[in-house]
Amino acid sequence: MSGATVASESARHVSEPAPRVDARRVIADLRALDRLTGGPDGARRVCWGEEWRVARDFLTELLVEIGLEPERDEAGNLWAYMNGEATPALAVGSHVDSVPTGGWLDGALGVMAAVGVLRAWAGVDQRPPRALALVDWADEEGARFGRSLFGSSAVAGTLDPAELADLRDAGGERIGSVLAANGVELARAPEAATRRERFGAYLELHIEQGPMLEAEGPAIAAVSGCVGVERRRFTIRGQASHAGATPMDRRRDAGLAAADAALRIEQLPAREGGVATTGSLRLEPGIPTAVAGVAELLVDLRHPDAAGLERMLEAAQTAVGDAAAERRCEADSELVWRIDPIPFDPQLVQAARESCREVVGSDRVLTSGALHDAAEMARVLPAEMIFCASIGGISHAPEEDTAEEDLAAGIEAYAALASRALT
Amino acid sequence: MSGATVASESARHVSEPAPRVDARRVIADLRALDRLTGGPDGARRVCWGEEWRVARDFLTELLVEIGLEPERDEAGNLWAYMNGEATPALAVGSHVDSVPTGGWLDGALGVMAAVGVLRAWAGVDQRPPRALALVDWADEEGARFGRSLFGSSAVAGTLDPAELADLRDAGGERIGSVLAANGVELARAPEAATRRERFGAYLELHIEQGPMLEAEGPAIAAVSGCVGVERRRFTIRGQASHAGATPMDRRRDAGLAAADAALRIEQLPAREGGVATTGSLRLEPGIPTAVAGVAELLVDLRHPDAAGLERMLEAAQTAVGDAAAERRCEADSELVWRIDPIPFDPQLVQAARESCREVVGSDRVLTSGALHDAAEMARVLPAEMIFCASIGGISHAPEEDTAEEDLAAGIEAYAALASRALT
Repeated sequence: MSGATVASESARHVSEPAPRVDARRVIADLRALDRLTGGPDGARRVCWGEEWRVARDFLTELLVEIGLEPERDEAGNLWAYMNGEATPALAVGSHVDSVPTGGWLDGALGVMAAVGVLRAWAGVDQRPPRALALVDWADEEGARFGRSLFGSSAVAGTLDPAELADLRDAGGERIGSVLAANGVELARAPEAATRRERFGAYLELHIEQGPMLEAEGPAIAAVSGCVGVERRRFTIRGQASHAGATPMDRRRDAGLAAADAALRIEQLPAREGGVATTGSLRLEPGIPTAVAGVAELLVDLRHPDAAGLERMLEAAQTAVGDAAAERRCEADSELVWRIDPIPFDPQLVQAARESCREVVGSDRVLTSGALHDAAEMARVLPAEMIFCASIGGISHAPEEDTAEEDLAAGIEAYAALASRALT
Repeated sequence: MSGATVASESARHVSEPAPRVDARRVIADLRALDRLTGGPDGARRVCWGEEWRVARDFLTELLVEIGLEPERDEAGNLWAYMNGEATPALAVGSHVDSVPTGGWLDGALGVMAAVGVLRAWAGVDQRPPRALALVDWADEEGARFGRSLFGSSAVAGTLDPAELADLRDAGGERIGSVLAANGVELARAPEAATRRERFGAYLELHIEQGPMLEAEGPAIAAVSGCVGVERRRFTIRGQASHAGATPMDRRRDAGLAAADAALRIEQLPAREGGVATTGSLRLEPGIPTAVAGVAELLVDLRHPDAAGLERMLEAAQTAVGDAAAERRCEADSELVWRIDPIPFDPQLVQAARESCREVVGSDRVLTSGALHDAAEMARVLPAEMIFCASIGGISHAPEEDTAEEDLAAGIEAYAALASRALT
């Protein structure tokens, strides 16, 4: 479990080989989940909604089938424990929730691979050398309320319910009532942190969600950590006025200032590195007959390095301020969410590289540009991830896909990593 | 009523002066309506909604108070007739509906001024030389379904219910069911056109909704006609992908293509004249963690000249296509609504100039950049408008306002124009 334990695994691995994970069955489970909760518009497993609950029911059936008793914690995470020769457990998992028109693999791959690991142990006449804890984190995506990593941050102890209390979804529903309808009391979610006592490390298999592995190979890679993220809401205020009766030179068009700001923000990574995205741009009153008086941009900045992230944020604020001033508008910004760059455990990274090399003959290491529950776990204990190549680098979209042989390679390397970490 | 009749009015005007309209009472009615249906966020009289019905009830009370019997036609327009010495009637009015956070005067001014004209005649022992028909048009703004001039186009005979049948509001409600809840059967709305037999000309008082009169004076002006409008929905399709895991140089960001397109469209009037507005810009999936795969722009182009409008449209399509292509996205567009430039009746324009000169000593003529129900009426019979200056040129916003003396001047000139047109 600790780095030292990982280093000593090879001897044990040889003497008592772990049962083989059935990668084809894992892929079949993924396809079954996709049939249940996907379609031409992609995955529909937005957390706290009907189809997410369908996905949870499907997962529960799989776990019960192998003799486990799934249970939920105070943050809505789903857990299934399997006894082993030692404690604390090794936690394995990911999330079944998705963005609104997402892909079939994002999150689901890691959960089904974790089921595969537990299923393999359930199928042999032998307890694992260490207990196993499967976890399906609640609301990794934050798609409905804009707050990612809900369940894993509750367990990591970084969730402050007071900061979330005012969040509403696009339909105006409060997070508190939506969670309550799912049996989760927002104020009590941090109590899920007591789960931490039960496990000592966390492993997650995930798709890359980017194009690097497909473009440069190999099909799978170890992950060195997650980039830092700064997510901000910029509001630009101009003057709403009549689209037909206001001459161009008298306008204070907040929408055009926001358009200009988004284009300036796009230029930041060329100077500072990292990536910058304006994924939401909303105008008010938002009707064709009015010059926009207010515009709101949701900007997501990511950088592997904390100082680089800070420079990006400063440059973004300058960019938005300048774009607003050029159209006689005012700008301000508020923090939506941030997370520092988080490195994974060096010895687990090494174990993951060895596991990947066993399967595909190469041990590349990537930094994850996407956020993962593993980043929250890495704050408090050793964590590690393995990535599978994404076709076209596409994720958070219905076209998200991975070649079946690359999925199988990822599942096998993940199983090998789990075997190393179990000893 | 005809131009010839208007030309002969001065003799009659002298022999039988029209009763004086009480401009202060009209302004008091406007303030009362604002107290009922306005607030810090502006007017809330969006057509077919609760507060619009409150405004209608208030108008109905005012009309009943002066002995009239308001009635609704098949398109939801409200009418009140007053007998006179001759027929067909002179129609006077505007609309009480507003944009979602609009101003207190847009539309309401013309309705209350028309009430003032009828109230003046009701207060004297004399029938008007011609019948009067007050009209409050339904859904001038088109704020909920994007289709302006609903009621007046039904009466003008240019409303095709089949073209509207698929419209939905932002909450997904169909126009048909929303209208039905207001007692209007969409398929039967064109039957309101039979009202045209009852009146021979139409006069409307309105705020300018632009800055020209305030900047250059005088406070009121006659209107030569309305600009042409081309309103189009542009859709740009790129590729949704993960905001953290997609390198900048591999993105096909439809949102940034749309931002670029909006900035290009802003440049069109400098070359072609007219005005161009992107009042709505929407991204999909519209979340901070995804590069936008689809973006939708609602673009409103206006030009006083039909050929100029056509050139603007071509240039806008090129601009959006180029902006999309530069980011490896595709663009297409669909017509939302269009109206040719419409000149008002030359003899009524002349009568309006004379009426304005009587009140403020100057007879300026403006072309309206905003659309008005008078433009629909001008398709089928003589129509004319008078404008009052808008402070700061602001409209479709809570700050919309006009100096009280300018409102009074507009109401007096409008009453004088009505007197001329009644003879």
